[in-house]
Amino acid sequence: MDSANIVGYIASAVTVFTFLPQVIKTWKEKSAKNVSLLMFIIAIVNEVLWIAYGVMRDDMVIILTNIVMMCMASLMIYLKLRYKNA
Amino acid sequence: MDSANIVGYIASAVTVFTFLPQVIKTWKEKSAKNVSLLMFIIAIVNEVLWIAYGVMRDDMVIILTNIVMMCMASLMIYLKLRYKNA
Repeated sequence: MDSANIVGYIASAVTVFTFLPQVIKTWKEKSAKNVSLLMFIIAIVNEVLWIAYGVMRDDMVIILTNIVMMCMASLMIYLKLRYKNA
Repeated sequence: MDSANIVGYIASAVTVFTFLPQVIKTWKEKSAKNVSLLMFIIAIVNEVLWIAYGVMRDDMVIILTNIVMMCMASLMIYLKLRYKNA
């Protein structure tokens, strides 16, 4: 494994946790009033595109990172809609 | 430019807008009560790492995307702290 790969895997490991604090906060507060739904919709669109890019570049770092991010963004959209009226 | 590059540039163009709806929403509502500060701190850490990865891979798509994302995340942290008590 070259050094770029190592940095990539560390970046990936940090990136997959990006949406987690928001998911936990929303889950605890049962409210996502100030959270933008559009942010997570855009996130899903770009994650699909990055997965395609990763596949074309044969870059597993990009593929795996964006699969996890897509799951997190989907969960956040679910929570946002669930607590729509909160 | 190969097709992977084209997909990468489209992905990049969409990605840079990810945080924008949240920035606009927070700016309008003057409140970010339900928004996680930690999410944007993690975002900045991972964007620094992705820029390093992009430099090592000589991948301008990754470098430019993450520079813009880092600026957006910084702006969001500023807004979150500015409307701390809102």
